[in-house]
Amino acid sequence: MRRLPLTLLAASLLLAAGTASAADTAIPATAVKTAEQLRDRALADGTAYAVLKSLTTEVGPRLAGSEADQRARDWAVAKFKALGFDKVYVEPVTYPKWVRRHESGAIVAPFPQPFVLTALGYSPGTPAGGLTAQVVGFDSLAALKAADPAAIQGKIVYVGFRMQRHQDGHDYGMGSMVRVAGPVIAAAKGAAGYLLRSAGTDAHQRIAHTGVTGFKPGDKAIPAAALSNPDADQLERALAYGKPVTVKLDLDCGFDGDYTGANVIGEITGRKHPDQVVAIGGHLDSWDPGTGAIDDGAGIAISMAAAKLIHDLPQRPDRTIRVIAFANEEMGLWGARAYADKHAKEVSKFMLGTDSDLGAGKVYRMSASVAPYARPAMAQIADVLKPLGVAYDASRPGGGGSDLGAMHAKGMAALTLNQDATHYFDWHHTPNDTLDKVDPKELAQNVAVYAAWTYMTAQADGDFGSAPGAFKSDGAEE
Amino acid sequence: MRRLPLTLLAASLLLAAGTASAADTAIPATAVKTAEQLRDRALADGTAYAVLKSLTTEVGPRLAGSEADQRARDWAVAKFKALGFDKVYVEPVTYPKWVRRHESGAIVAPFPQPFVLTALGYSPGTPAGGLTAQVVGFDSLAALKAADPAAIQGKIVYVGFRMQRHQDGHDYGMGSMVRVAGPVIAAAKGAAGYLLRSAGTDAHQRIAHTGVTGFKPGDKAIPAAALSNPDADQLERALAYGKPVTVKLDLDCGFDGDYTGANVIGEITGRKHPDQVVAIGGHLDSWDPGTGAIDDGAGIAISMAAAKLIHDLPQRPDRTIRVIAFANEEMGLWGARAYADKHAKEVSKFMLGTDSDLGAGKVYRMSASVAPYARPAMAQIADVLKPLGVAYDASRPGGGGSDLGAMHAKGMAALTLNQDATHYFDWHHTPNDTLDKVDPKELAQNVAVYAAWTYMTAQADGDFGSAPGAFKSDGAEE
Repeated sequence: MRRLPLTLLAASLLLAAGTASAADTAIPATAVKTAEQLRDRALADGTAYAVLKSLTTEVGPRLAGSEADQRARDWAVAKFKALGFDKVYVEPVTYPKWVRRHESGAIVAPFPQPFVLTALGYSPGTPAGGLTAQVVGFDSLAALKAADPAAIQGKIVYVGFRMQRHQDGHDYGMGSMVRVAGPVIAAAKGAAGYLLRSAGTDAHQRIAHTGVTGFKPGDKAIPAAALSNPDADQLERALAYGKPVTVKLDLDCGFDGDYTGANVIGEITGRKHPDQVVAIGGHLDSWDPGTGAIDDGAGIAISMAAAKLIHDLPQRPDRTIRVIAFANEEMGLWGARAYADKHAKEVSKFMLGTDSDLGAGKVYRMSASVAPYARPAMAQIADVLKPLGVAYDASRPGGGGSDLGAMHAKGMAALTLNQDATHYFDWHHTPNDTLDKVDPKELAQNVAVYAAWTYMTAQADGDFGSAPGAFKSDGAEE
Repeated sequence: MRRLPLTLLAASLLLAAGTASAADTAIPATAVKTAEQLRDRALADGTAYAVLKSLTTEVGPRLAGSEADQRARDWAVAKFKALGFDKVYVEPVTYPKWVRRHESGAIVAPFPQPFVLTALGYSPGTPAGGLTAQVVGFDSLAALKAADPAAIQGKIVYVGFRMQRHQDGHDYGMGSMVRVAGPVIAAAKGAAGYLLRSAGTDAHQRIAHTGVTGFKPGDKAIPAAALSNPDADQLERALAYGKPVTVKLDLDCGFDGDYTGANVIGEITGRKHPDQVVAIGGHLDSWDPGTGAIDDGAGIAISMAAAKLIHDLPQRPDRTIRVIAFANEEMGLWGARAYADKHAKEVSKFMLGTDSDLGAGKVYRMSASVAPYARPAMAQIADVLKPLGVAYDASRPGGGGSDLGAMHAKGMAALTLNQDATHYFDWHHTPNDTLDKVDPKELAQNVAVYAAWTYMTAQADGDFGSAPGAFKSDGAEE
């Protein structure tokens, strides 16, 4: 999943330079023409859907650190090679391993019945035999924050924030806060356990949304789980009777030492400047309940397919196209942070980058954090993307995506390519994250966007302003 | 759930008598007026939704024979009494108890990953440690029937029929055949296990639809389960690679002796003819994964609320309104059959009847199996229901519903009140059968229909033709 930006900077900081000058970065006309051809070719190309079908069928769920994590890496290496990438390699990433073995829960009294729920990532398990306690309900994180610890001590805290559908998915800002911060706050106030209404917009599906909490290994942590939306409705109805409601949680999950996985990287090597890279990608891991089609098989497929189209041109691009399949995004951007730490000193060589991690809906808006002298080149890219329905908003910063955001924080110039996320949070982090949710045509539109901007960046005369710490004024801080 | 009629009789058998005569059954004008008032009052009455909320919240899932079965009966007795019914009683029903303890399944090779599946009712469990076998796939029941047993022996049979949404839900005819008959056919051909694509129209939900198979206690039976639609897609994709696909099923379920539950009955006692009854109802049991809101809490709520509106009139109706909350419909109409066996000799006292068991969608069509001399009364009822959007089709028979169909088979005159089932099979027999699927306004429309026809029948001058074996020509046979 993508972390949504919490703040927007003043438009004035970001406005393009007025008119082009000799010092401005520009895309040569031949490259613009080739990018238009790539764009149009991408719309009719089935590579991304085939890659996504392959990953979700042959590997399926691929929780970071699980047995399937190794299979996913093997798949990615083999797929990069099969697509003809010039260079394929892995870079190790070590992180705490978290495992889910069993999860169940139920209302014990006054109305006994099972819940559909799922343990949150980094949740500890319950004691053997489960945790049974009274529930205290809050309708918002603010209400929990304001609560007297005496009302919470020894109880299972429930927070019932309801996410609504939006094109930009902005309700996930609060939804993820309730999941990430809520358990930590509840634990600090002495709660015995934590439940939330799933951070998901599928109001009528008995499907729970997992996702990581804010606990770290060694923290004081409490068992934490998400109820499906209809189960949250049911718990709220039960609480509304005004009698004590007792719930049992039985979660067998938790940390299990360290694990070393890897970022898997494929490159189309630049002809003139092989050491200068355009960086794209997605994350290879997924949550375990689904097969990770929208989160984030789509990002892997879009970036692999975009690079493959460039690979198939008569000659290699001037600069290197680097596709990074990141390790363990879901439990805390472990692959992203390892990558940024390892490559921080080369940040000036990263011309421009973003990964794709908000599903397979159409891209509808582009924004960028680039040097003022690169704005004319951004405008050229925007012109090529416009027929795809992509609006260029020069007043907003670019974030680089959930994983390449870490390189942006180091100073890499970065795009944001907003996807239509209206239904993304219906399926996000659930068993419902499966291939059937992806429209091949919408997926191909994404490939068209990525193929075009990636190629134009690779062929640009001039750079986009990447330099150590370059975009702190856009909020790109570590 | 309601069994859908497999055949329709020739229209000629069912046409109403041309014009009214002195021997015809008729509804007095005062009763018509009161029925119109009941109808209009029902549309603004919240009783049914309150009853449904109470049942689904306070009892929740209520699998026949489970601990919750007793709680559901206690609830029904208490609710009838709280609503002021004149007489509340139970009639015992004994049936084989089937229990579900654990269920899981997975593709073992070539693409290991778990399935979302659910064991079918009356399925035996797998051996300890599970059943692992190669899958042989069929796209229809006909293909399975035609298959050489040698191709099936020792394998897990999969049948992939896809249900589509229809207003009358008719694809459930084949969908339920694949579930009920398929396992029996596969077992006879030597299969080791059986899987089907869920008999459900929720093509994109990772939710499996349970339901009973055709196995009986003591039969040669094989473990049988339903895959969610996306899991069926995944299995079909895996099979399409052309390599052997091995699946493991681990089901802990099966028969567990006999159980005695009960039909729970509430009556509004008739003022003039207390022994003559108008019979309505629904079934009290539900499948265990959901809370049985649409199947069949709605039928219980509609019939209780309709009778309650009649109860609240200034005086009791001429005949008795009998609301029957049937036991164990889901695993083979046990309550219905016990009821019909017990009351067969009184069939002539049952004026007209039907239960409600196709959810809470609006009633859009009425048909009836009644004596020709009762057609004028049916036309009067139709006139009162017409403003509710109910069309009267005098060319179709009535079936009496899934449970009162058994009394119709004995000779009770019967209605069919078709509900809009466009989305019913999205949720039917799944965890998704929860209160949020019910629109209170649509539920109230059902109550308006039931209150009006029930009252008019109770006040009719004349009968509707009930007599032992009266409707064999409509296909109403035991």
